[in-house]
Amino acid sequence: MASTKSRVVDVHTHMYPPSYIDILRSRSEIPVVRSFPQAPDHPRLVLLAAEQPALDAALADPTAAVQPPGRPLTPHYADLAQKLHFMDTHAIDISVLSLANPWLDFVAPDDAPGLARQVNAEFDAMCASRPGRLFFFAALPLTAPAPAILESVAHVRGLPHCRGVILGTSGLGEGLDDPALLPILRRLADADLPVFLHPHYGLPNEVWGPRAAAEYGHVLPLALGFPVETTVAVARMYLAGVFDAVPALRMLLAHSGGTLPFLAGRIESCIVHDGQLLREGRAGKGKGRRTIWDVLREQVYLDAVVYSEVGLKAAIGAAGGAGRLMFGTDHPFFPPLESDEQGEWESVGLNARAVMDAVGEDSEEARGIMGENAVRILRLEMDQPATL
Amino acid sequence: MASTKSRVVDVHTHMYPPSYIDILRSRSEIPVVRSFPQAPDHPRLVLLAAEQPALDAALADPTAAVQPPGRPLTPHYADLAQKLHFMDTHAIDISVLSLANPWLDFVAPDDAPGLARQVNAEFDAMCASRPGRLFFFAALPLTAPAPAILESVAHVRGLPHCRGVILGTSGLGEGLDDPALLPILRRLADADLPVFLHPHYGLPNEVWGPRAAAEYGHVLPLALGFPVETTVAVARMYLAGVFDAVPALRMLLAHSGGTLPFLAGRIESCIVHDGQLLREGRAGKGKGRRTIWDVLREQVYLDAVVYSEVGLKAAIGAAGGAGRLMFGTDHPFFPPLESDEQGEWESVGLNARAVMDAVGEDSEEARGIMGENAVRILRLEMDQPATL
Repeated sequence: MASTKSRVVDVHTHMYPPSYIDILRSRSEIPVVRSFPQAPDHPRLVLLAAEQPALDAALADPTAAVQPPGRPLTPHYADLAQKLHFMDTHAIDISVLSLANPWLDFVAPDDAPGLARQVNAEFDAMCASRPGRLFFFAALPLTAPAPAILESVAHVRGLPHCRGVILGTSGLGEGLDDPALLPILRRLADADLPVFLHPHYGLPNEVWGPRAAAEYGHVLPLALGFPVETTVAVARMYLAGVFDAVPALRMLLAHSGGTLPFLAGRIESCIVHDGQLLREGRAGKGKGRRTIWDVLREQVYLDAVVYSEVGLKAAIGAAGGAGRLMFGTDHPFFPPLESDEQGEWESVGLNARAVMDAVGEDSEEARGIMGENAVRILRLEMDQPATL
Repeated sequence: MASTKSRVVDVHTHMYPPSYIDILRSRSEIPVVRSFPQAPDHPRLVLLAAEQPALDAALADPTAAVQPPGRPLTPHYADLAQKLHFMDTHAIDISVLSLANPWLDFVAPDDAPGLARQVNAEFDAMCASRPGRLFFFAALPLTAPAPAILESVAHVRGLPHCRGVILGTSGLGEGLDDPALLPILRRLADADLPVFLHPHYGLPNEVWGPRAAAEYGHVLPLALGFPVETTVAVARMYLAGVFDAVPALRMLLAHSGGTLPFLAGRIESCIVHDGQLLREGRAGKGKGRRTIWDVLREQVYLDAVVYSEVGLKAAIGAAGGAGRLMFGTDHPFFPPLESDEQGEWESVGLNARAVMDAVGEDSEEARGIMGENAVRILRLEMDQPATL
């Protein structure tokens, strides 16, 4: 997949370790793992609020021939040997694992710190079992009180394979533009732990219209809801001044920034044309304001999970060059439907091909995006702490 | 602004003709034109649902020093002489006018056909007063019964300066993926009237979080809500098979397609990885399905109102070349805040500069995007009917 001697790194690859699966099995509400008589082969993983109608339908009449909600919980979600097989199949040298959504966002405040410690230790142990091939982004107990969250940051900072944290967009419950989150972000920045920002909540179902639930599968929530959620979250952080307040903060944005590269120009234009921001002295000529472009080029990295040459070129343009882009697969999501899951995945091929089409197969840029950028940015050599 | 002898055409430029302003003056709910004691200079135009809290606050205490909602109704919104001055200031040779949002979407069914006829005739008369310089996209009475809508299509088809229709995303009330809309879209396609798709409704306010209304001005609803609305609408049409059902339908998408160029790859990937669509035989190998890229390159045009080189290049890439892009200004929205409205508008300059940066100042592509594409696609020579 990549040129000789350069490493291929997957920075967007998820797992649910066994202890987390146990939590999901014990639940009755989304997110949940449970079996359905309609699909006895595998228990199923039901993650998204958009899947509630299908869950209700399947539970209302277990004998009905309805399609059960969610996706089959195959070994791809929780089994390390399967992850390594996937890496070998796709010539991925190094994976930076992360807990998949919705992380610990739903966990009761009292349980969250202990579960975070357990899950993060489990990730570190998995990484230790394959020295040099595995690193991870840790999960934080964001429902717990701030001191417990800060303690968790200290814990993961000491885990030898931790290279950052994965966060959703809810923050402490009110979003990433919540000032109460600033101490956490400052501590992460001080600890040289970048934030991998990942969507989960999408958009309210009403946006998809009356036909979507029955007729469009999961396409709209996943294809549009997820990237828009990321875009809104970063725009809110930018407008709240979070990037200025925490200048050492570094963020890796899932799915090439959602749709931020395309909309950055419009965001900038709407800011310079906003009467309220001007009146409040927050925009206008001579304000020395850092633009959203500045923030993209100084504090943001983008994964290369955008499934098209057009999108990837825009991401590279917004990032001010290929050096801030990092390849990812989104494994174990988007498995192939018409070929063997043990073979090559089309979703992986789409993203690798986009890189080659955008910057040329044998280019320095391609080697950077496919892995060398991640090795440099996330310090993926053993015995080196993450520093950005 | 453009090279010698090539024409500059503005395909995205709005007006509220006097009869429409009268309707807004007669109303007490959004959309509404009214005066506020807090800002006595101009009556104000309040358009967006997001402006409801500010409207309530201003009405609750007329003596309070709160900022009134909306924007001042300057002559830019309704005065033809002002439009022509704007065109001359920016060296725009031809404008394709359209009624601004929310068009006739809020008009009672009984009133809509008559008001549509009046407004469209008014636009045609304005165009006739400046032969060769003005054309327009007509408005349809979408709240009226289908026969009245079809009658309106026939009416505007006969107006000599009409070159298409402008539609919002609500359709007959349930969106543009509503099968009940198909006869209207077929009639428009048969009449060679392209649809200029424009957002108005944005996203539910909850998406912007608890701080947006007080702290972020209109940035989030305008910068993100509008383009996402357009993207969702087109994706729903695509998934519903509208483009296949009406192959002669041509659509011009506002704001360079919202964010469709960036997300098209992800939409395609989500379709080929969707179990429901596969089971129903609507995706999968060998289905001969036209991809969203095919539709973009065969049935869609994009305006060049994206405010950045990065965005415009992605739009050109998604459209399969610069030949489907058409310059626009979005006048009278986004007036300059720190310079004279009678002079040059920064919002216009941003979009013109993006074209030059993306394709080169003296290129054939630049001449195409700045005007010649629109002359060809919309047949902006007098005495020629619009044909696509």
